[in-house]
Amino acid sequence: MPKKLKLGMVGGGQDAFIGTVHRMAARLDGHWEFVAGALSSTPERALASGTELGLDNDRIYTDFDSMARSEAARDDRIDAVSIVTPNHAHFGPAKAFLERGIPVICDKPLTTTLEDANTLATLVEQTKTPIILTHNYTAYPMIRHAREMVEAGELGDLRIIHIEYIQDWLAEPLESFGQKQASWRTDPVKSGAGGAIGDIGTHAYNLARFVAQKKANRLSAHLHSFMPGRVLDDNAHIIIDFEEQLRGVLLASQVMPGYENEIRLRISGSQGSIEWHQSSANQLLFAKLGEAPRIVRRAGAGAGIMANAVSRIPGGHPEGYLEAFATIYTEVAGLIRGEDQPLLPDIRAGIEGLEFISNCVDSAHQDGAWVKF
Amino acid sequence: MPKKLKLGMVGGGQDAFIGTVHRMAARLDGHWEFVAGALSSTPERALASGTELGLDNDRIYTDFDSMARSEAARDDRIDAVSIVTPNHAHFGPAKAFLERGIPVICDKPLTTTLEDANTLATLVEQTKTPIILTHNYTAYPMIRHAREMVEAGELGDLRIIHIEYIQDWLAEPLESFGQKQASWRTDPVKSGAGGAIGDIGTHAYNLARFVAQKKANRLSAHLHSFMPGRVLDDNAHIIIDFEEQLRGVLLASQVMPGYENEIRLRISGSQGSIEWHQSSANQLLFAKLGEAPRIVRRAGAGAGIMANAVSRIPGGHPEGYLEAFATIYTEVAGLIRGEDQPLLPDIRAGIEGLEFISNCVDSAHQDGAWVKF
Amino acid sequence: MPKKLKLGMVGGGQDAFIGTVHRMAARLDGHWEFVAGALSSTPERALASGTELGLDNDRIYTDFDSMARSEAARDDRIDAVSIVTPNHAHFGPAKAFLERGIPVICDKPLTTTLEDANTLATLVEQTKTPIILTHNYTAYPMIRHAREMVEAGELGDLRIIHIEYIQDWLAEPLESFGQKQASWRTDPVKSGAGGAIGDIGTHAYNLARFVAQKKANRLSAHLHSFMPGRVLDDNAHIIIDFEEQLRGVLLASQVMPGYENEIRLRISGSQGSIEWHQSSANQLLFAKLGEAPRIVRRAGAGAGIMANAVSRIPGGHPEGYLEAFATIYTEVAGLIRGEDQPLLPDIRAGIEGLEFISNCVDSAHQDGAWVKF
Amino acid sequence: MPKKLKLGMVGGGQDAFIGTVHRMAARLDGHWEFVAGALSSTPERALASGTELGLDNDRIYTDFDSMARSEAARDDRIDAVSIVTPNHAHFGPAKAFLERGIPVICDKPLTTTLEDANTLATLVEQTKTPIILTHNYTAYPMIRHAREMVEAGELGDLRIIHIEYIQDWLAEPLESFGQKQASWRTDPVKSGAGGAIGDIGTHAYNLARFVAQKKANRLSAHLHSFMPGRVLDDNAHIIIDFEEQLRGVLLASQVMPGYENEIRLRISGSQGSIEWHQSSANQLLFAKLGEAPRIVRRAGAGAGIMANAVSRIPGGHPEGYLEAFATIYTEVAGLIRGEDQPLLPDIRAGIEGLEFISNCVDSAHQDGAWVKF
Repeated sequence: MPKKLKLGMVGGGQDAFIGTVHRMAARLDGHWEFVAGALSSTPERALASGTELGLDNDRIYTDFDSMARSEAARDDRIDAVSIVTPNHAHFGPAKAFLERGIPVICDKPLTTTLEDANTLATLVEQTKTPIILTHNYTAYPMIRHAREMVEAGELGDLRIIHIEYIQDWLAEPLESFGQKQASWRTDPVKSGAGGAIGDIGTHAYNLARFVAQKKANRLSAHLHSFMPGRVLDDNAHIIIDFEEQLRGVLLASQVMPGYENEIRLRISGSQGSIEWHQSSANQLLFAKLGEAPRIVRRAGAGAGIMANAVSRIPGGHPEGYLEAFATIYTEVAGLIRGEDQPLLPDIRAGIEGLEFISNCVDSAHQDGAWVKF
Repeated sequence: MPKKLKLGMVGGGQDAFIGTVHRMAARLDGHWEFVAGALSSTPERALASGTELGLDNDRIYTDFDSMARSEAARDDRIDAVSIVTPNHAHFGPAKAFLERGIPVICDKPLTTTLEDANTLATLVEQTKTPIILTHNYTAYPMIRHAREMVEAGELGDLRIIHIEYIQDWLAEPLESFGQKQASWRTDPVKSGAGGAIGDIGTHAYNLARFVAQKKANRLSAHLHSFMPGRVLDDNAHIIIDFEEQLRGVLLASQVMPGYENEIRLRISGSQGSIEWHQSSANQLLFAKLGEAPRIVRRAGAGAGIMANAVSRIPGGHPEGYLEAFATIYTEVAGLIRGEDQPLLPDIRAGIEGLEFISNCVDSAHQDGAWVKF
Repeated sequence: MPKKLKLGMVGGGQDAFIGTVHRMAARLDGHWEFVAGALSSTPERALASGTELGLDNDRIYTDFDSMARSEAARDDRIDAVSIVTPNHAHFGPAKAFLERGIPVICDKPLTTTLEDANTLATLVEQTKTPIILTHNYTAYPMIRHAREMVEAGELGDLRIIHIEYIQDWLAEPLESFGQKQASWRTDPVKSGAGGAIGDIGTHAYNLARFVAQKKANRLSAHLHSFMPGRVLDDNAHIIIDFEEQLRGVLLASQVMPGYENEIRLRISGSQGSIEWHQSSANQLLFAKLGEAPRIVRRAGAGAGIMANAVSRIPGGHPEGYLEAFATIYTEVAGLIRGEDQPLLPDIRAGIEGLEFISNCVDSAHQDGAWVKF
Repeated sequence: MPKKLKLGMVGGGQDAFIGTVHRMAARLDGHWEFVAGALSSTPERALASGTELGLDNDRIYTDFDSMARSEAARDDRIDAVSIVTPNHAHFGPAKAFLERGIPVICDKPLTTTLEDANTLATLVEQTKTPIILTHNYTAYPMIRHAREMVEAGELGDLRIIHIEYIQDWLAEPLESFGQKQASWRTDPVKSGAGGAIGDIGTHAYNLARFVAQKKANRLSAHLHSFMPGRVLDDNAHIIIDFEEQLRGVLLASQVMPGYENEIRLRISGSQGSIEWHQSSANQLLFAKLGEAPRIVRRAGAGAGIMANAVSRIPGGHPEGYLEAFATIYTEVAGLIRGEDQPLLPDIRAGIEGLEFISNCVDSAHQDGAWVKF
């Protein structure tokens, strides 16, 4: 096992949810040590959080800019920085670190506007510094297997894709109660133009793209906001025409009571279908035309090279969300060490996410008219 | 148990699939005896089928018209006739029997054109004779319970409905191989303007209407035909705006390998969600906002009056498709005997099915433009 | 379709549960008409029930003995009689009808004592008249398929069988409240020596024998009665050594809250395993050693001759308990018409059921000591 | 977050499976750093493994004894040692570290004989140094919730417990092929007297004890070895009488094709039942007598304090085996830091595991006779 890489973090201080997830994910496989952070935009909270998390005092920063400058100047500078702030606070730090050649791991969506995303894309190209999106669902072993099956042609010509990401946490007007997550995620200034489509729809879209590997040509989006006073969408029904003959439906909702981060994907081709649910993440249903459907299980019979490469423990012992998230961190470590890591969601995934949001909003403004990619 | 009613049948002879289903359904609860039939449009087959099924010789007919005339003239005339022919052969016999005041049980879709359906509607009104569509899925006990929950307001204000009916039997070009069912169901002359939308989409639409009890205002339909040379749609992705704030998605497919008549319905309102799958027809998932989801089971705790009214045996012993179909026949018997049977799919359901098909085709011809109901 | 056979019934009048099930099952496939009955041991109830069910007055009997005598004397005598009384009232009518050469369909367990069962066995042999037990679970299509797989050697040498039948309806002391079913089923005079083992354990044992087709050599039974004052067992944990190397566990319970007639069977051999649950009766899980498990579905790919022979409708449309029960009636009709019907549970199944109960009780009296078959 | 604790390890070098699991588990929550090890009994492999895992040279040991001596002498000595060797190599290192006051984390079963286990128990008492067994399944959030429900009396008086741990990896004679895991696990010298009962049966027994919290009074065990030449059991059917009226069945198998570490638990009491499967670890079914069953989900509505205390991420995002294992490590860290950690499986769990194995073997030698605890 090679020497650990050094990780910095922007955001993710006390009370933040996703920062903790990132740190667990970074730890699991032992490739990272967390050494520096600008953990909050509130200086006192940034300091308290850094101390609580055991950072050395000289690497606890109160703003991302000084962090980027200081770290870039150190011999033992961080090998990458994770940006786990609300969406509107991705661009600034991403730019600051990329400009200094420090690789970035960033929550999705990449930015709040397509323009900002394009600016970062230019920067990535100029600095030859990668930015990786934590589209962590792409790292589930059975999602990798799904992709491998599609690549191997086991489904034949792809025809139909149905993907959905359903939650219920915004079925009540939490933002009115001052709940922190709800407040920024329903605020267009902090979230960008997309509500559900930005927060979870981009995950679904990315996952569809990852597995099917077909470009989207156009979409027709119907966005809803069921909560009085909520500006951003909390529900979306989207029709997508992908290249060739692939026809898709993407559903995203944050207001369906009883559904807890239910991500479900199914793809049918001329020769077979696959179906995957996050709630039973360790298995992939595979129905070959004219045969009894099979339950392909992580680390079990029929699981292929790509699934096994990101599988840690024997079958039957479930691996979950954190393991998939950890795989992203492990693959980023590999990338930084010089490996080829073609499956990581890179700047293109970031751009695509913003295009998706932008097109959805455009289409919805025109009552569902087709919008081209 | 009152005296059995007399049933006649048009279509459903040798090799026919759905006629056998109707006869089993009619027998199960003991309300019907099958006494007369014009079982095939081919006279020899009509005669052979009638004999094989044990009909008296004088009630084996070779065409529906003579059957309608003869039966209408008998003292022991049939109490109802079931029409189980291909779609294009519904209108003729339906008209002939309605005109003579003989109640009609008819497969869906009611006719191949909206015009014909309207003609029958007029006839129903004039003759005060009912026509009942075999939208049998509406008779599953847990579907009845779903409707009861909606009516009782247990879901709050309805917001989202997702319904799908997925099959795979046309994933191969069976019509090219001369398979009888595939041949007429993919032929616009015999099926009407709808392929998948007519054959299974109407069931899904009807089921959504039955449970949610909201009118559809408009739809945007995307119809596909994945099999080269197939004229009618074999896949459909449809967006539906129902009245009030209810927003829906209806998926129908006949080309997704591994899916066997998978009908799935879920509805979310402001206070809760329900989900039902035909493959586990004896249970309804109910998630009340903020509570652990419950598995409400047929004849079990929590099942209500409407479910129990159409439930035959104790919980845990599955009832299935034929039982639901039989409930339609039993309720038609009740109707004929003078009972109020408000849940039966009547002429309005037939008209609505044709409107649905017609609107889908119109929308699809305009690349998914909204079409109003 | 040949002429309908005539069915009589002993027991099954007003308020009886299982008589209704028998009549539905007899009707479904159209092979039987119900023409005669001694439907209750209470004369008024027998008469009222017969009238209500539409029997001709001269075939409504007030006791099984006069029914047996009268029917035997008629030209249009019944072709078979169904005995659907409580257990202690099986022997008398069974004997009366067998002695007159009228085939008997009988609920399980056959009698309340092994002696009585042996007496009937002698009678069956002497009169060449069959008695068929309604071990209806053996007629589920996927149970037939399971048996076919075992016969074909697809599991290799059988090693392990786990079978269970779990209910909850006696988790409360219903017999104290005067509930009719509970009263006789917990009464050793009416039920015989077995409580749960007689009522549901015999079904489980029969199902294991049917699918595995191995004789039981010995068993070790642990019977419990959790309800104060209840004399008969309401829970049973039983170890069974079958012939060759097959080792089994049979669980039966009537006091596990939330379980509704959950019958589950799994068998493992050297080459594979199968698993079946009544709650998903239309599928059989099949795991071949070293391969991804397959979901074999009724009327679907991989379903074999034996399953298809008793399957009525296309896959995905669930068939249930009544359909399996109806298959027993249809096969009895075949038997009476001269067909070979080797899968029907006959007098040997009846004897075996009593041996099972008797051995369980003996073993339990000796604190679980092994008792040989 | 307090300063990281220092972890040593005995066993777990190259090619070892469970050592890797321990290290991931130790890393996940950030409470441990891995600093020392005697990672193999083969010196070269111990050295290579230590180097590969990034240990400092002076803390790579070639035998546990010198490791115990050296570490005990250091100021920065390890805070705990994990023993991840085959069973026969637990006792030696456990003794060596306990004698020096270094807390031990040990795989189960604790030792190969009850005598050795008792020796360690004495040592634990004398040295006031804890030894914790990695009965990791007890740390699943929904297992914690199950225990909380039992404690809160939500099931009423416990009556029935069914637990099983089913695998298939020994359905082939892997030990004949030289497979390392199979070789030692089927060898009584290295594994002790138990095969399946030691390897997985002890987990099942511990889990039953953990949730139900009832002592076992006696058991009747039927052990089988289906593979020719295999000395130890590879399948077990065990009847257990727990204190009060709780009656149990424990099944363990390593030879049922298609089952992958399937651990399933269900408990029924007078007021309700719970059911849990490792394959859907994030949910617990709860059926209250007379109510529709509920699906209680990790981090969801109805999950209680004990579940939430060991839950990391929002509901719907599955946590798995490694997370549960990590909870054990985190709770050990807490214990060492002075917290009360009453749920950790301590020396008593170790003793009980050996008693369970010993009693099973005794009973099986007497053809399933009852053996008292």
